[in-house]
Amino acid sequence: MLTAKVNVSLKTGVVDPQAGAIKSALINLGFKDVQSVSVSKLIEIKLDSDSKGKARKDAEEMCEKLLANTVIENYKIEITED
Amino acid sequence: MLTAKVNVSLKTGVVDPQAGAIKSALINLGFKDVQSVSVSKLIEIKLDSDSKGKARKDAEEMCEKLLANTVIENYKIEITED
Repeated sequence: MLTAKVNVSLKTGVVDPQAGAIKSALINLGFKDVQSVSVSKLIEIKLDSDSKGKARKDAEEMCEKLLANTVIENYKIEITED
Repeated sequence: MLTAKVNVSLKTGVVDPQAGAIKSALINLGFKDVQSVSVSKLIEIKLDSDSKGKARKDAEEMCEKLLANTVIENYKIEITED
């Protein structure tokens, strides 16, 4: 059993209103140390597979086809053993 | 400069329709190895602070007050140096 951990984040330069809202809210709550905020999605997929190579290839294909919008998003894949 | 990496995920037992939809879609796309999918949010906060202790305390307070809905969500905090 392998786990593919996929992190999907906005590309540099793409405006992220959610992160902006969180930053403003934190500063308004009194957290004056906050310099910047970024938000990304972590998708963990458990795979019934023993080949790390195949798992990575599959995860890349999943990102290209479904998990990420590659026009505006980057993805990072990490394969771990359970 | 420190970075607080906050992972916010649904508690065990809370139904996650987004993860369910991703799982079904992946299986429909032909990824038959997929056993389960979970989705969480990763919030990275850059802090103008040099005290890891204070950064952790602040990040915990941010989670309790804003970042997580502690009725249905768990959070994990990691403090890293840039």
